[in-house]
Amino acid sequence: MALVVQKYGGSSVSDAESIKRVAKRIAEYKRAGNDIVVVVSAMGDTTDELIDLARQITPLPPSREMDILLTAGERISMSLLAMAINNLGVKAKSFTGQQAGVITDAVHGKARIVDVVPSRIRETIEKGSVAIVAGFQGVTLNTNDVTTLGRGGSDTTAVALAAGLGADVCEIYTDVDGIYTADPRLVPSARKVDRITYEEMLEMAASGAKILALRCVEYARRYNVPIHVRSSFSGKEGTLVTNVPAIAAAGPNEGEEAMEDPIISGVAHDRSEAKITVVGVPDVPGTAARIFEVVASAGANIDMIVQNVSVAATGRTDISFTLPEDDGPIATTALNGVRAEIGFDSLQYDDQIGKISLVGAGMKSHPGVSARLFGALRDAGINIEMITTSEIRISVVTRQDSLDDAVRAVHSAFGLDGEGEAVVYGGTGR
Amino acid sequence: MALVVQKYGGSSVSDAESIKRVAKRIAEYKRAGNDIVVVVSAMGDTTDELIDLARQITPLPPSREMDILLTAGERISMSLLAMAINNLGVKAKSFTGQQAGVITDAVHGKARIVDVVPSRIRETIEKGSVAIVAGFQGVTLNTNDVTTLGRGGSDTTAVALAAGLGADVCEIYTDVDGIYTADPRLVPSARKVDRITYEEMLEMAASGAKILALRCVEYARRYNVPIHVRSSFSGKEGTLVTNVPAIAAAGPNEGEEAMEDPIISGVAHDRSEAKITVVGVPDVPGTAARIFEVVASAGANIDMIVQNVSVAATGRTDISFTLPEDDGPIATTALNGVRAEIGFDSLQYDDQIGKISLVGAGMKSHPGVSARLFGALRDAGINIEMITTSEIRISVVTRQDSLDDAVRAVHSAFGLDGEGEAVVYGGTGR
Repeated sequence: MALVVQKYGGSSVSDAESIKRVAKRIAEYKRAGNDIVVVVSAMGDTTDELIDLARQITPLPPSREMDILLTAGERISMSLLAMAINNLGVKAKSFTGQQAGVITDAVHGKARIVDVVPSRIRETIEKGSVAIVAGFQGVTLNTNDVTTLGRGGSDTTAVALAAGLGADVCEIYTDVDGIYTADPRLVPSARKVDRITYEEMLEMAASGAKILALRCVEYARRYNVPIHVRSSFSGKEGTLVTNVPAIAAAGPNEGEEAMEDPIISGVAHDRSEAKITVVGVPDVPGTAARIFEVVASAGANIDMIVQNVSVAATGRTDISFTLPEDDGPIATTALNGVRAEIGFDSLQYDDQIGKISLVGAGMKSHPGVSARLFGALRDAGINIEMITTSEIRISVVTRQDSLDDAVRAVHSAFGLDGEGEAVVYGGTGR
Repeated sequence: MALVVQKYGGSSVSDAESIKRVAKRIAEYKRAGNDIVVVVSAMGDTTDELIDLARQITPLPPSREMDILLTAGERISMSLLAMAINNLGVKAKSFTGQQAGVITDAVHGKARIVDVVPSRIRETIEKGSVAIVAGFQGVTLNTNDVTTLGRGGSDTTAVALAAGLGADVCEIYTDVDGIYTADPRLVPSARKVDRITYEEMLEMAASGAKILALRCVEYARRYNVPIHVRSSFSGKEGTLVTNVPAIAAAGPNEGEEAMEDPIISGVAHDRSEAKITVVGVPDVPGTAARIFEVVASAGANIDMIVQNVSVAATGRTDISFTLPEDDGPIATTALNGVRAEIGFDSLQYDDQIGKISLVGAGMKSHPGVSARLFGALRDAGINIEMITTSEIRISVVTRQDSLDDAVRAVHSAFGLDGEGEAVVYGGTGR
């Protein structure tokens, strides 16, 4: 008997039929003797439809009202799911974020969880019921206002509840069978990974892998909540995200051989970044700092940075950095505002870049990894524009239109290709 | 400057355009210097769509979950309305029943309001904002569970908030210009009534007039909240429901002549009742009491009762009563269960009846009223099956297919016909 928190995304509860299917799975799991808390997203396109309704009313809806509007979606899916489970003869009750004790700050639209007080949830499961909780939402402590958690909010709700309840595992149900060595939509030969560490998963998420949001993995790492990413469309074991590396979990005998090699978790890619190049920057101390200070103050998140060697004749250099495409306008506006002060020549904006990242443990101590990566890209005829590395990741910026080829080439070069074809079931929830 | 609670039904906020129209009206009213609290129902067919979703899941949804599901509807309409008002440059914030302090008992699906603690609403209007409140919903005090108030719930929310805030008036916006002397859909010459007392309105509501729910008028009478029933489609004055009779409000001069006559408020009709006749009841003391005890225990609401004179030869009599058609099955089942005990011969069930009621002050002291009523029905060739009277009402049961003619004949006989044609704008909200 285990205490399990399960999270189902919007694609798993897109209509009455799929809600009944999920209910059946939960009822079976409950009958097997487990205590279950279920976190659910809004049904299929509900959120998009509500956003569309708001847009018909006003181009700039107040974020507090937007949050109240959007949380209607989970209210619908959670009550329907509770009904469906009751209909199978298993007791179930649904709870809003507020009722479940998900306390957040007051930043509407992207609130952060500040506390989880799941006393009603605990009481409900102790009485033998399944507790269904609305994902993606919380309530402010002092003003009792409804908030939404933003991107990855439902996953984070699930992990936070699992932490608050001391659950044995947090199962994230999605439309793929687990974490793959690359996006299976792009690389059909991608292999499912059985285990991955929080750190590797963080690097994957930060590098563009969309299966788990960064904040959710951060939360799980902080409270050491094991995450099991699996499909709601199959009964298969998925990928376990813990602080135990795959090599250690495999045991001394099986691991022996592999311990000599770097462990590559996978290849992530990201099309959502843009590159800004500040051309002709005076090469004097403090200029780079000032540039990034200005960009950060504007609220833009900088990812990779490259500074060319200064041209001796002019005493000037170029500084390039990448950032989320969405932050492009505010960053360029902010930089143009300090052009005279900093004294640079011009700005170049490029949103046609792609980023490929190789993630795995022990990379730094294996110089052969980067050599093999660069070799694979060269053999595929792909030009490298920027490079960054961390303890367990190497990221490379290429032209966006060669990104797919780059991912496949690298995936293959590191022997990640599996034998079967990866299974993808549908869209993804939030 | 006044403090006004306004309630808009589902037909007034059926889509983005109508929400914008209502927002404009509220913004103008606010700019004119009033404090406004708005109670809003779910958009158009939202509630029906949610009920349909639940039916796809299970034939018997738990009432607690059904309540959570249905309250999503008001959450959507209230946040959209708040957005629309903000978009016009007037501050507005929306509140759920729980946030607005609407405390109810735990009878899901038809909860009763036990307390209203509108501290956040008061605070909001004191800060110069319009407060939008979800109608039809509340929260239980101890368990913090979401409840719905059932039929007439949004109207009752509005009146309860008006009472709790000490508002000057509670405006109920609907699809007709006010209370009419008869249903304008049936009697195109029906006249709008400028004023009506709570008692008369209660009799009208109890007699089938659907414009205001009985419980809402009861609440208003108890706390002496003036209700102004008016149309959201026009700017016209509607009907004021207070404890002041029309004759008194008109002042001594204008009223002089009329004070001699009974004041007829209008003609109500009801097609939703059925008649049960218990045939061959032993005419001994206590039998009638036992019959109605059984029916009441089954949860059926009895309206009119008629007992025929006993036939001396048999010592038996027939007892007929009317009740809501929906309660028919439970009442007949319950009575059949005690047939041997009571010793009656058979049950007759008739759902083809119609009820017409004449409502007005001072009827009892004017015997001419019933004479004129019965004369009008006779002249129209309409058979009377049952009669009941109260201080301010006479109700008559006829065949359902002659009900329309009956309403028009009586309306005309009491000189209620106006000159113009009544305006009806659309469907009705809840």
